[in-house]
Amino acid sequence: MKIIRAASYQDMSRKAANILSAQVIMKPNCVLGLATGSTPIGTYKQLIEWYEKGDLDFAEVSTVNLDEYRGLSKDDEQSYWHFMHVNLFDHINIDPARVHLPDGTNPDPAAACADYDAVIHDLGGIDLQLLGIGSDGHIAFNEPGAAFELGTHCANLTEDTIEANKRFFARKEDVPRQAYTMGIKTIMQARKILMVANGPKKAAIIKQAFFGPVMPEVPASILQMHPDFTLIGDAEALALI
Amino acid sequence: MKIIRAASYQDMSRKAANILSAQVIMKPNCVLGLATGSTPIGTYKQLIEWYEKGDLDFAEVSTVNLDEYRGLSKDDEQSYWHFMHVNLFDHINIDPARVHLPDGTNPDPAAACADYDAVIHDLGGIDLQLLGIGSDGHIAFNEPGAAFELGTHCANLTEDTIEANKRFFARKEDVPRQAYTMGIKTIMQARKILMVANGPKKAAIIKQAFFGPVMPEVPASILQMHPDFTLIGDAEALALI
Amino acid sequence: MKIIRAASYQDMSRKAANILSAQVIMKPNCVLGLATGSTPIGTYKQLIEWYEKGDLDFAEVSTVNLDEYRGLSKDDEQSYWHFMHVNLFDHINIDPARVHLPDGTNPDPAAACADYDAVIHDLGGIDLQLLGIGSDGHIAFNEPGAAFELGTHCANLTEDTIEANKRFFARKEDVPRQAYTMGIKTIMQARKILMVANGPKKAAIIKQAFFGPVMPEVPASILQMHPDFTLIGDAEALALI
Amino acid sequence: MKIIRAASYQDMSRKAANILSAQVIMKPNCVLGLATGSTPIGTYKQLIEWYEKGDLDFAEVSTVNLDEYRGLSKDDEQSYWHFMHVNLFDHINIDPARVHLPDGTNPDPAAACADYDAVIHDLGGIDLQLLGIGSDGHIAFNEPGAAFELGTHCANLTEDTIEANKRFFARKEDVPRQAYTMGIKTIMQARKILMVANGPKKAAIIKQAFFGPVMPEVPASILQMHPDFTLIGDAEALALI
Repeated sequence: MKIIRAASYQDMSRKAANILSAQVIMKPNCVLGLATGSTPIGTYKQLIEWYEKGDLDFAEVSTVNLDEYRGLSKDDEQSYWHFMHVNLFDHINIDPARVHLPDGTNPDPAAACADYDAVIHDLGGIDLQLLGIGSDGHIAFNEPGAAFELGTHCANLTEDTIEANKRFFARKEDVPRQAYTMGIKTIMQARKILMVANGPKKAAIIKQAFFGPVMPEVPASILQMHPDFTLIGDAEALALI
Repeated sequence: MKIIRAASYQDMSRKAANILSAQVIMKPNCVLGLATGSTPIGTYKQLIEWYEKGDLDFAEVSTVNLDEYRGLSKDDEQSYWHFMHVNLFDHINIDPARVHLPDGTNPDPAAACADYDAVIHDLGGIDLQLLGIGSDGHIAFNEPGAAFELGTHCANLTEDTIEANKRFFARKEDVPRQAYTMGIKTIMQARKILMVANGPKKAAIIKQAFFGPVMPEVPASILQMHPDFTLIGDAEALALI
Repeated sequence: MKIIRAASYQDMSRKAANILSAQVIMKPNCVLGLATGSTPIGTYKQLIEWYEKGDLDFAEVSTVNLDEYRGLSKDDEQSYWHFMHVNLFDHINIDPARVHLPDGTNPDPAAACADYDAVIHDLGGIDLQLLGIGSDGHIAFNEPGAAFELGTHCANLTEDTIEANKRFFARKEDVPRQAYTMGIKTIMQARKILMVANGPKKAAIIKQAFFGPVMPEVPASILQMHPDFTLIGDAEALALI
Repeated sequence: MKIIRAASYQDMSRKAANILSAQVIMKPNCVLGLATGSTPIGTYKQLIEWYEKGDLDFAEVSTVNLDEYRGLSKDDEQSYWHFMHVNLFDHINIDPARVHLPDGTNPDPAAACADYDAVIHDLGGIDLQLLGIGSDGHIAFNEPGAAFELGTHCANLTEDTIEANKRFFARKEDVPRQAYTMGIKTIMQARKILMVANGPKKAAIIKQAFFGPVMPEVPASILQMHPDFTLIGDAEALALI
């Protein structure tokens, strides 16, 4: 485990973008595992800036995202598909055929998840996986529980998540209650893992996850076992370690 | 996870020895992680036979064993050091300087464990780790618990183990109550893992560990996450899967 | 460069078969590069014997052969396709869909060669390439010349070769005058290279190729640059080194 | 072979620096093979600029340079040791203990060269080798000849080189007539090779070396066989291809 202390959100984003850029430059046909959420937005902005300067070429890069809401289509503005396009893909020369997220519109969870595992397998696995962390230690939608999940599965959203999402949907029945998400095994088999974390709300979980016991009650704690895991945090997120 | 069904203990041993031999032939200076216990004895016998035929050369091989009893010296006939020499090392051309076990005579557990982690690190990690499995799912001395251990640590033996060992020691106070053992992280970072299991007493745990949830209450279950894990069992051990 | 001295042709064959077996066991879906000629026949016999004992499983193995005569069909008893089936493939559980040789019946050399390079590329390259050596230093049909050839190409057979082949053909005009052959680059990019050589006729070229200058006049000399090249020879072939 | 067309010397230098930076970021303890000459100076300038911005950390990087003049000490302003320090090492946080060049002051060429090969071997080989190219196709001091050299050796400088160097030395007898230089095998075993070339004087040799036959008369032509070779040139250098 390597911990990099960043001076600010901007600095964290630049340091993370440097690692993603290095992966793309060293292996132009690499497979990037990407994440949604507010934390990586600055990282994506920096990548777009370097792409525009001519430093980066995404033409051969493949991407797999961690998760997608069950029931949301690509057109839905709340979908992670939409998020990724607005915040990254629409601004770089990525090949649309090489962009992968779980298919939220597949009503059969077993099929949707098996399909996504097959996509990742056929790509040869993930070279570099970008992660955020939830304040309860979840990574992707792998929530605290009694066991570590393996492959892509259909996860029930917590009531907190469902509640928080309500403001984005006109009708209550449209609010997603489940998501298709990569499992812990898929994430752990990425050749390199990069986590970004900022703000004081992450400080406690970061101490617990990376300096406490490895147990399924803290899903991110398993990352302590990964041979090439880097955590980049701002001063607030790393305040307790 | 790859499961190989063997017809008998002899067949299991030959199949396991074939994999160990292949590792030695493909990478003559490889690092083998070895195990004690009754199960691998047949595997070691087969390796000795092929060595004597001229098929194998151990001159550049390094070995690291999973564990050693705290307090026992190399001379002690109950030590794992002794076991490995009697059952394998004394019969092949291994370089004594390349044989490694935790130092049972080091009275300082923290130092003994840190030293052993440093040995494994300096060797560049383990190419192939051979494992058995306990009927409660333990691997090495990683016993069922609330969390997965990471590196080498000092484990308390279960009362069952202590009781069973009593017959080997003249004086009760000589019976070891602790062992220095590799942790789960070290084992999981081996590039290839090979487990041998035989007999009906292993059938239930093999079903639970490899077809049940991944949780620290069943330490071996974590092997489901390893990218190159092979289980070779006889018909009895694999009867329930 | 690693040189292994064998006591006899049988010993050379067993040692070579050990390395091929190890590759298959360590990576069951490996890509083997195979060779024709009298030298490797003993190696193939040993592989067949171990396959029959249950030690080897070729179900997932892919093979690519070094070369094929231009103009000969698979049915032709003089074709290398035929040679490989009679001496190896007909006796093991290889998947016919995973067996590859250049297509001797393709009348367009450029297309035949490009197709074969694509096959090798799509397989992810060669894990282990078996080679013999000609007494003039040729490997496959890469003959001595002013430059090293790169990919698969159409080579003119030497008059000696054409003459020697005449006895196998009823009509003079059926004797092949060209062959499609892997180039030096393809061979050099194999992750592991294994050469077998026996008999006194090989002694001089082995000294020249592996202890003399690296130059296209001695095609095999380039193997001195390979990071994982093993030569197994009997006493006669290694007599001068 | 991958060819990247740069708009200018500055653009070439930035693109090359991006690849070197990516190597350092992806593997902070990597081994960089570095080169002297006027061409890479812009690349080194860019690396220094990014280091000063906080994007790069050389603390764990090791370097091996291609060559050193025989007879020149580290203090000599004409030594490559001096060149590398003035143009790169003095401006970044490289660990002096991790900087390696052949020892020009060792009067025994065999010992100096064997020592340097041992240094490279002990470092585990070169991750990324930066190269320029001479207008006669030489790389490092591997001059056109009848054979490819393998490891580090003592090369006689051409009369042109000796003549051109005279202006830098007060006394004629101080002008070096030989250099210790990595051989072709060492260069070819680098995991990644990056060549920079600019200006019209390089156009003809670039066409010949990378689109002509692979032969020792054009040492750089061997790079056509490398599995991961990138050429970055400005418009003038790439004018004929």
